[in-house]
Amino acid sequence: MKPQPECAACVLRRAVFEANLVDPSKAMEVVKGVLSILCEKFDENKPSIKVWTEVHKKVYEILGTDDPYRELKRRSNDIALEMFPLALEYYEKSEDKLRAAELLAIAGNVLDFGVSIHSPEEFRVKFKKILDEGLYHDDTDLLRKYLKGHVVYLTDNCGEIVFDKILIREIKKYVDKITLLVRGKPILSDATREDAVYVGIDKEVDELRDTGIFAVGIDMDLISQELKELLYSADLIIAKGMGNYESLSETDLRPIAYLLRTKCEPVARDIGVPKDVNIVKLYL
Amino acid sequence: MKPQPECAACVLRRAVFEANLVDPSKAMEVVKGVLSILCEKFDENKPSIKVWTEVHKKVYEILGTDDPYRELKRRSNDIALEMFPLALEYYEKSEDKLRAAELLAIAGNVLDFGVSIHSPEEFRVKFKKILDEGLYHDDTDLLRKYLKGHVVYLTDNCGEIVFDKILIREIKKYVDKITLLVRGKPILSDATREDAVYVGIDKEVDELRDTGIFAVGIDMDLISQELKELLYSADLIIAKGMGNYESLSETDLRPIAYLLRTKCEPVARDIGVPKDVNIVKLYL
Repeated sequence: MKPQPECAACVLRRAVFEANLVDPSKAMEVVKGVLSILCEKFDENKPSIKVWTEVHKKVYEILGTDDPYRELKRRSNDIALEMFPLALEYYEKSEDKLRAAELLAIAGNVLDFGVSIHSPEEFRVKFKKILDEGLYHDDTDLLRKYLKGHVVYLTDNCGEIVFDKILIREIKKYVDKITLLVRGKPILSDATREDAVYVGIDKEVDELRDTGIFAVGIDMDLISQELKELLYSADLIIAKGMGNYESLSETDLRPIAYLLRTKCEPVARDIGVPKDVNIVKLYL
Repeated sequence: MKPQPECAACVLRRAVFEANLVDPSKAMEVVKGVLSILCEKFDENKPSIKVWTEVHKKVYEILGTDDPYRELKRRSNDIALEMFPLALEYYEKSEDKLRAAELLAIAGNVLDFGVSIHSPEEFRVKFKKILDEGLYHDDTDLLRKYLKGHVVYLTDNCGEIVFDKILIREIKKYVDKITLLVRGKPILSDATREDAVYVGIDKEVDELRDTGIFAVGIDMDLISQELKELLYSADLIIAKGMGNYESLSETDLRPIAYLLRTKCEPVARDIGVPKDVNIVKLYL
């Protein structure tokens, strides 16, 4: 994807959020730092994730931290782990287990554990809302045919990865091998190797890999040749969340299934669906 | 007020909104134009309204219009006029008429007529919510003592000015003269002379004035000497909405009463109240 007009405000908001997590007194310096990058690099012809990666690098530098989200991510994982039995119960009671597991994995992408979800009660209410909404775009039946051989599963946020465990268990029934690919360095609230081990999702997969780099999504220009080959050799890639979509939507990696909620207009427009819907979309 | 960290994202969002009102294909050019101004001028030591004025001037230039809000403002006035009898009914039934009229004038500031309010039913629901919230900070009793002589009433948005009519009728009971001060040129969704005449608020006051300039709020450095003298000679200034607060909070104009809802964190912080509350605050 390329940067869209709305993205500049969004990334600035995010930068202020990061400053407030670490040191609110540096928020103004952070905003100025981000503005200077955007002035130079915000361009409709550049891959958006490269701009966002540079922005967050600068923000982290100004804040003097390699992970402003550390505590938030830990809390997010803990709360999601607490909710896990409820999610598992829903899955076990469902007839169409693959679709149920997909919805759970998307619910994990929607719910801000530790930000807007703190109790099982809040979870039940919001979770029910998402399940009731269902999938606006649903390629599950088609996807079933591509669940074979080697699947590479690209994770997104902390908290969310707890729910990914259920989808991975379900996928396992169909495929020979699952590789889980997490971020190489802490960026945003995305899961790293440490988080994967913390929530125990490493034990659900055949292989745990990380991108080895600091980047929003998967920057195909920066990952190792070996990792690139792994992605191209996969029988199917499952990519969670908008960051992975943004970074891979213009590549020729196929087949790839995006499981996400369209949390913003630009991504929704790019996919061709409304904002605030849940989708399982397969590109062949 | 000075620019706060959150303001950069907010003004960018507003610029995209303006582009989408006129010509969405120019949104990217608009964002780049705004970014270049912010890079140079966004500074915690500058009066914020000067930056916002410059931003909107640039946006209007790029969009080739002197008023991106023209249609929206007209619709807003029309819908508010439709709702006027309901507001008047509330006022007439209230025992404390000044407080009721203040709340109505603030409700006018809160409700985005034509954006989120289209029918009397929507209006009733949202309006009731605001009335139920009441005033978080309430200087009405103190204000009553300052309602005398010559009052200058600074308007804010279109639509809202319809509801201001009721507060002006109420204030008239106490004072000798009311001057209504509207914007000199169209900016944002703020009321101009044309809007004042359109909704008939000009007939409620003794004098209708405009600032004569293109500016967010009241830029004391740019208005005429005569207008400045008028403001300083007033027995009381009533200022509606955040733009007027932002532009006057650091001046020595006194006594001044701000009637507004804190729609953003920076203004709420500056006033020392929470976000999303209704206030009548008098500075002596």
